[in-house]
Amino acid sequence: MDDKNMNCGELSCSACKRHKKAPRSEEQIRQLKNRLARMVGQLNGISRMLDENRYCGDILMQIAAVESALQNFGYIVLQDHLESCVTEEIRGGNQEIMAETIELIKRLK
Amino acid sequence: MDDKNMNCGELSCSACKRHKKAPRSEEQIRQLKNRLARMVGQLNGISRMLDENRYCGDILMQIAAVESALQNFGYIVLQDHLESCVTEEIRGGNQEIMAETIELIKRLK
Amino acid sequence: MDDKNMNCGELSCSACKRHKKAPRSEEQIRQLKNRLARMVGQLNGISRMLDENRYCGDILMQIAAVESALQNFGYIVLQDHLESCVTEEIRGGNQEIMAETIELIKRLK
Amino acid sequence: MDDKNMNCGELSCSACKRHKKAPRSEEQIRQLKNRLARMVGQLNGISRMLDENRYCGDILMQIAAVESALQNFGYIVLQDHLESCVTEEIRGGNQEIMAETIELIKRLK
Repeated sequence: MDDKNMNCGELSCSACKRHKKAPRSEEQIRQLKNRLARMVGQLNGISRMLDENRYCGDILMQIAAVESALQNFGYIVLQDHLESCVTEEIRGGNQEIMAETIELIKRLK
Repeated sequence: MDDKNMNCGELSCSACKRHKKAPRSEEQIRQLKNRLARMVGQLNGISRMLDENRYCGDILMQIAAVESALQNFGYIVLQDHLESCVTEEIRGGNQEIMAETIELIKRLK
Repeated sequence: MDDKNMNCGELSCSACKRHKKAPRSEEQIRQLKNRLARMVGQLNGISRMLDENRYCGDILMQIAAVESALQNFGYIVLQDHLESCVTEEIRGGNQEIMAETIELIKRLK
Repeated sequence: MDDKNMNCGELSCSACKRHKKAPRSEEQIRQLKNRLARMVGQLNGISRMLDENRYCGDILMQIAAVESALQNFGYIVLQDHLESCVTEEIRGGNQEIMAETIELIKRLK
């Protein structure tokens, strides 16, 4: 796809895919994907709890655990975003990146 | 396992599995499992976005979407818990169920 | 005002004031008002920090402290609500109180 | 106080008061203090509701309203922080400001 050339900071439309200028390291991608895989495992565990007619309170505890894992995952991606994309954009003179950043923060739990 | 006979309201230990006295309907289980399956799909989508070196801001938007879906899922299970288990326990004279309930609410986002 | 006779569980309109059937104890009211007074003190402290041109990061730490205090305050009122009004309503056969309760929980942080 | 000379970005200790390099405008301070005053008014309103033995559900709605007002207030201060202090620090070559920023974000609701 030729939209591969579109990087953070360039004009974008909702239909096209934006990319990260400074790619994540393989190690970083591996760790993030491990976290996602663990959360998928937790959600599948909740699915089995429903099949086993498990107590709501125990299911709610598992939901709370996935919520925490997901929030931490979000913080890791946000910190990387602040330290790479946002830092670059500010150095490059892009003033609007902070308004975009605050909107992202508002959407996260 | 013989702990299958242990229901909400009975004494429990962390090692054994508690069950829901009034089982969820098949339709209810189907809908809850559909929601879980959609969230698994969203997490797998985020995994692919990492492989494709997608922009952090777009990944953060997806994380926020799963957080909302997970929070709504938690509210549905909590409402069911309040309307079934908690209501039964109170009618049965169990006073402690509300302290347990507030602890669950504090853990949820 | 004659709406003083309207208690939790009775039909209400947005214009009238509903009251708590089982009044809070004087000690409970005193403790809750102390918490409110401390939060007012913290907000006034933030106001002074603005006058003194204090660093945003330090102001944000104070905001986070008030948010935690307010959330804890909400949990205390919610627990009291669950253990008094909600418990009474359920014992009295009011089924709808749980739907109202979940709406309140959704609004709280 | 001679700590008046300590600005954001300089080494600081918990005992001393840090200040904002680029001071907030008078208009900005006025608007922020108005928001704080409104929240103080709301907390005092909750205090009166306790005196009037008001229904927990109505008090919880007011708590939720202050929580939202406080969260919005936090976002305004955070956005100002990102657009002034954080932007300046990054332009000045301070790499650690983003780690501090993520810690602040984690503490806010």
